[in-house]
Amino acid sequence: MKAIVIHAAEDLRIEERPFDAPTVGEVAIEMQAGGICGSDLHYYQHGGFGPVRLREPMVLGHEVAGIIRELGAGVTGLEVGQLVAISPSRPCNGCEYCLLGQQNHCLNMRFYGSAMPFPHIQGAFQQQLIADAAQCVPAHGLTAGEAAMAEPLAVSLHAVKQAGDLLGKTVLITGCGPIGILTILAARRAGAGTVIATDLSNFTLHKAAEAGADAVYNMASQPDALSRFGAAKGSIDVQFECSGAARALTGGIAALRPGATLVQLGLGGDMQVPMQSLTAKEITLRGSFRFHPEFASGVDMMQKGLIDVKPLITHSLPLDAALTAFELASDREIAIKAQIIFQN
Amino acid sequence: MKAIVIHAAEDLRIEERPFDAPTVGEVAIEMQAGGICGSDLHYYQHGGFGPVRLREPMVLGHEVAGIIRELGAGVTGLEVGQLVAISPSRPCNGCEYCLLGQQNHCLNMRFYGSAMPFPHIQGAFQQQLIADAAQCVPAHGLTAGEAAMAEPLAVSLHAVKQAGDLLGKTVLITGCGPIGILTILAARRAGAGTVIATDLSNFTLHKAAEAGADAVYNMASQPDALSRFGAAKGSIDVQFECSGAARALTGGIAALRPGATLVQLGLGGDMQVPMQSLTAKEITLRGSFRFHPEFASGVDMMQKGLIDVKPLITHSLPLDAALTAFELASDREIAIKAQIIFQN
Amino acid sequence: MKAIVIHAAEDLRIEERPFDAPTVGEVAIEMQAGGICGSDLHYYQHGGFGPVRLREPMVLGHEVAGIIRELGAGVTGLEVGQLVAISPSRPCNGCEYCLLGQQNHCLNMRFYGSAMPFPHIQGAFQQQLIADAAQCVPAHGLTAGEAAMAEPLAVSLHAVKQAGDLLGKTVLITGCGPIGILTILAARRAGAGTVIATDLSNFTLHKAAEAGADAVYNMASQPDALSRFGAAKGSIDVQFECSGAARALTGGIAALRPGATLVQLGLGGDMQVPMQSLTAKEITLRGSFRFHPEFASGVDMMQKGLIDVKPLITHSLPLDAALTAFELASDREIAIKAQIIFQN
Amino acid sequence: MKAIVIHAAEDLRIEERPFDAPTVGEVAIEMQAGGICGSDLHYYQHGGFGPVRLREPMVLGHEVAGIIRELGAGVTGLEVGQLVAISPSRPCNGCEYCLLGQQNHCLNMRFYGSAMPFPHIQGAFQQQLIADAAQCVPAHGLTAGEAAMAEPLAVSLHAVKQAGDLLGKTVLITGCGPIGILTILAARRAGAGTVIATDLSNFTLHKAAEAGADAVYNMASQPDALSRFGAAKGSIDVQFECSGAARALTGGIAALRPGATLVQLGLGGDMQVPMQSLTAKEITLRGSFRFHPEFASGVDMMQKGLIDVKPLITHSLPLDAALTAFELASDREIAIKAQIIFQN
Repeated sequence: MKAIVIHAAEDLRIEERPFDAPTVGEVAIEMQAGGICGSDLHYYQHGGFGPVRLREPMVLGHEVAGIIRELGAGVTGLEVGQLVAISPSRPCNGCEYCLLGQQNHCLNMRFYGSAMPFPHIQGAFQQQLIADAAQCVPAHGLTAGEAAMAEPLAVSLHAVKQAGDLLGKTVLITGCGPIGILTILAARRAGAGTVIATDLSNFTLHKAAEAGADAVYNMASQPDALSRFGAAKGSIDVQFECSGAARALTGGIAALRPGATLVQLGLGGDMQVPMQSLTAKEITLRGSFRFHPEFASGVDMMQKGLIDVKPLITHSLPLDAALTAFELASDREIAIKAQIIFQN
Repeated sequence: MKAIVIHAAEDLRIEERPFDAPTVGEVAIEMQAGGICGSDLHYYQHGGFGPVRLREPMVLGHEVAGIIRELGAGVTGLEVGQLVAISPSRPCNGCEYCLLGQQNHCLNMRFYGSAMPFPHIQGAFQQQLIADAAQCVPAHGLTAGEAAMAEPLAVSLHAVKQAGDLLGKTVLITGCGPIGILTILAARRAGAGTVIATDLSNFTLHKAAEAGADAVYNMASQPDALSRFGAAKGSIDVQFECSGAARALTGGIAALRPGATLVQLGLGGDMQVPMQSLTAKEITLRGSFRFHPEFASGVDMMQKGLIDVKPLITHSLPLDAALTAFELASDREIAIKAQIIFQN
Repeated sequence: MKAIVIHAAEDLRIEERPFDAPTVGEVAIEMQAGGICGSDLHYYQHGGFGPVRLREPMVLGHEVAGIIRELGAGVTGLEVGQLVAISPSRPCNGCEYCLLGQQNHCLNMRFYGSAMPFPHIQGAFQQQLIADAAQCVPAHGLTAGEAAMAEPLAVSLHAVKQAGDLLGKTVLITGCGPIGILTILAARRAGAGTVIATDLSNFTLHKAAEAGADAVYNMASQPDALSRFGAAKGSIDVQFECSGAARALTGGIAALRPGATLVQLGLGGDMQVPMQSLTAKEITLRGSFRFHPEFASGVDMMQKGLIDVKPLITHSLPLDAALTAFELASDREIAIKAQIIFQN
Repeated sequence: MKAIVIHAAEDLRIEERPFDAPTVGEVAIEMQAGGICGSDLHYYQHGGFGPVRLREPMVLGHEVAGIIRELGAGVTGLEVGQLVAISPSRPCNGCEYCLLGQQNHCLNMRFYGSAMPFPHIQGAFQQQLIADAAQCVPAHGLTAGEAAMAEPLAVSLHAVKQAGDLLGKTVLITGCGPIGILTILAARRAGAGTVIATDLSNFTLHKAAEAGADAVYNMASQPDALSRFGAAKGSIDVQFECSGAARALTGGIAALRPGATLVQLGLGGDMQVPMQSLTAKEITLRGSFRFHPEFASGVDMMQKGLIDVKPLITHSLPLDAALTAFELASDREIAIKAQIIFQN
């Protein structure tokens, strides 16, 4: 079985790895599609981010879907031959946070493709995978590529839930990478009245408009575009900050109305925040991190046609072209989501 | 100018009424379309409901749209020739509740076509209308019939806001008259994952399915249909009770999961409520009454194509056929919304 | 070891029962104090309530405290000789609701002294008890009687959390049995500005005033007392309905202001609810059932002196006088909380 | 009539000013007590703060109370001779935000003693004052000094409302000036279980402990004191940041648990915020600015004895000693709240 393994920055290898049979409560999956995420790119380009650093070889990948080939003992509700979206999130369901329903803050989380603990948590970019049955959500009616989008879609759905009521509201999305565009789709699905999107790439803004943004602004060429929304005390109800860039936060706070909500999804280190303005406007700035029930509900919404992620999958390449796929995924002027196809 | 005036139960007349010129802050409107609401039908059939009784002749109607023909002094933001949806809600903006942002509970409310105070608040089923500029929401791009749906749509949007987060949730709508079907549209727009609808009329259930309900049940022929959702402790997340029928409330509470929300829109007098079950399941039962900001945001959503109310307008009749329109509107096997066209 | 066992209505016996040693994760407790709850009285007087019926002998009691005498293997954080409040709530921590943080809705709950499943869940009115370590909250600084109040206090704290913000608000408590008075204490602790209490017993109202109610009304002698709060649209912000009496609900709804919250704790079967008024006022009626984290936080608040339950313990009787204790507890003109002392 | 007028930094003068009779809806007040706020000190020491600068002489002061001496026409509900707390907040009650119940964000706010618009909004440190009746809250049973504390108390009560449920929670207060200590009182009143306070002054920490903080830490001598609360993922539920110091924010975020709330009251310009941690922990950072209904409810709570502000009034000086009062108020090792007494 082949797997995509990162050894160090710029050292990505396709390697043979052995694989096991499923034990109690597990299933064996023939992997179909895997999307390359920003964190995969960080490992590939920099060997990690902030204090999170590679210390041993690690299989990348956590946006994956495949077909069940074998059921371990005691597995019910799944069938051999079924396409499933596979959640990379494996909370312990026993710690303080799990028992509060906050599984995304599990103290013992084993999230695919994470170098945070050591030994690292191996990822899922490989041809065969043993997973817990509880990670698998049947995805009949979807393509494998769509099913592999369940993970980033869940991130966006979770962020939308963090924002509270969006019905009829004016929403700003800063940063239109895959998460930004999925957040446009999710916010629209949740009833947003007007959606405004910003980025520095014309290609991503084109895709943002295609996804339903009512207005898009390239902050490189129109740096003052948001100022029109900042008249009087501001007019935007909710911002989803998906870029991790401090000036997107600052520009957004100026355009938000008193009592507005700003959900921070983008991870970008420390930021200089205009606290005086945030305080005087009584803005609610809330972090959003990963997801939990939103994984299954995202699959359901795709199946019902309530959210269409297909236009975001700009590239699909075979496993042997993984390096090319990683290079493509890095170029924000040509790719939104690049996926790898694991079987030839 | 002709107006549709109710004198007593079963005594509806088309009468000539004088009309004035607009004064400061007012506009004169040539009325186009007016939808017949359940409360209009109650005045027509019974002369009122509960303690609310006709004591003098009253122009009916509060779901209306028209074209501005003249602007009073000081009016800005509106233009002659413009189609406007006209809000029937006229809060005082000075009382305790208005200053809390709860204008729908205004102590001095003057809502079109209400026999609650005396003298009654005259309605808007007439050929010309003087309205406050603040009541008018420009509706370009909509038909007059759609614009006249802004009022019941606002009722449904307000109810959806009362329910909190719907994204991906399983929603039950009991009662599929115009408000029920608009609530299906609004709940879907707000992200509902699965929508189940019940009624006693096959025609309304057909329209409910057309509006997007995933499953519909006729409680006359399938009285136990909801019991499948009541296994274990219940599986429905949110109910919108639009029928005012006690058994819809009771059946819903049995099917709701612990911690669920039940929004009551339907008005049906006192009800026997299974309080033991409501308490043990910690259900939140919340009333929803009229609307305020949702009137303008409903117009905006219709204009953006986010909500399509056209299939609900089953009948449009000229003013001279008003009696026929009221009869049609009473028949739940052939009509959802019957509207009157005021100009020939 | 002696235990207080109910065999049928009016058939309460003090019996000898064997007892075991603690196994892994368990502790052996020498029981000190146990409070008689309304549900204990129902079993004693009627053999159950509604569909819940005794089908085999059952030890009563779920408001208990004792001293740890032995630790089973693997128990940490507890010590022999320690006074502990013992939670009667034993959720499975594995079902759907437990993993949502809604342990009070656990599908596999084993709550002390419940005839709901069969075999019944035996209670804790006995001289020795084997309990899970997780049920035990150290209660140093409290008397055993206070520690045994942790359970009903938790019920009231949970109800207060269901109500949301109380700071400075006007609160109505209907029904001033132990839960009602504890809710007065909890609501005051949560910042209630004005507290109004009603009951039919002058003794309980005297205790309600002692607990901090600003005004108390005996609805038997002053049936119109709440009408003063119902002027205009009502003036009470939050009601805690602790009586289970339909007229307390009806009278409260008339006195509540638009947008108010009504928390139902009292269990009293089906009720006739003025839904028209609840709907038009947009009242939120929410059930409150048992508790979860509030058990430990209630002990903490008693220890810090933030809540003083001692005045509620009107009677303490030895185990051999259990029958007398049950009779006393039934008389609302002389008792608030009667407790049994298990060791002589 | 004498008034305390700031002309420029370090140029504070006691001047004679004329005064008028009350007109319709107004009252004439003989001023009693006025507390010196941090913003008064900023005008005195620096001539303003950030972009807010003195451009003309301005009477200082907005924490005031006095005795009504004359009622203008049409005033009801107030009496000559009555002690009143006077709200410095004068929203227009007509703008978009006022009609949303967000009067603290009024577009036309005229808040006493503000150099933000020009001409400046004159303050209330003077011997006679004409105020709107709506600004006056009867304060019988309180001293004038207590009544003058209604304004900063309202700031703290508003912040506590921004935090949501505090019942039994662990709360951190960073910065124990008058607002910090009032927030301790308000948080405790709202049910906080454990209160931890930090500052750089031993005197303020002594007063914080006196006000009910369970633990106090001087961050100058114990810079790592909060790290004990940051074990695992953090253990503090709610932080009130009253210092405006970036490191109080940073230290707090490290000690907060996932899903915690941080209310920012202190105004301190831009801040470097650990956004990575805020995002991964899904912390809610919410600004709190001024107050509205909390002014009257604060007076009520003081009258009921639910909050005792007297220990915070460390200094009371006559009008002629105003300069001394401002110097005292600046010294955080000897003063919490210094007040001026306007009548000799």
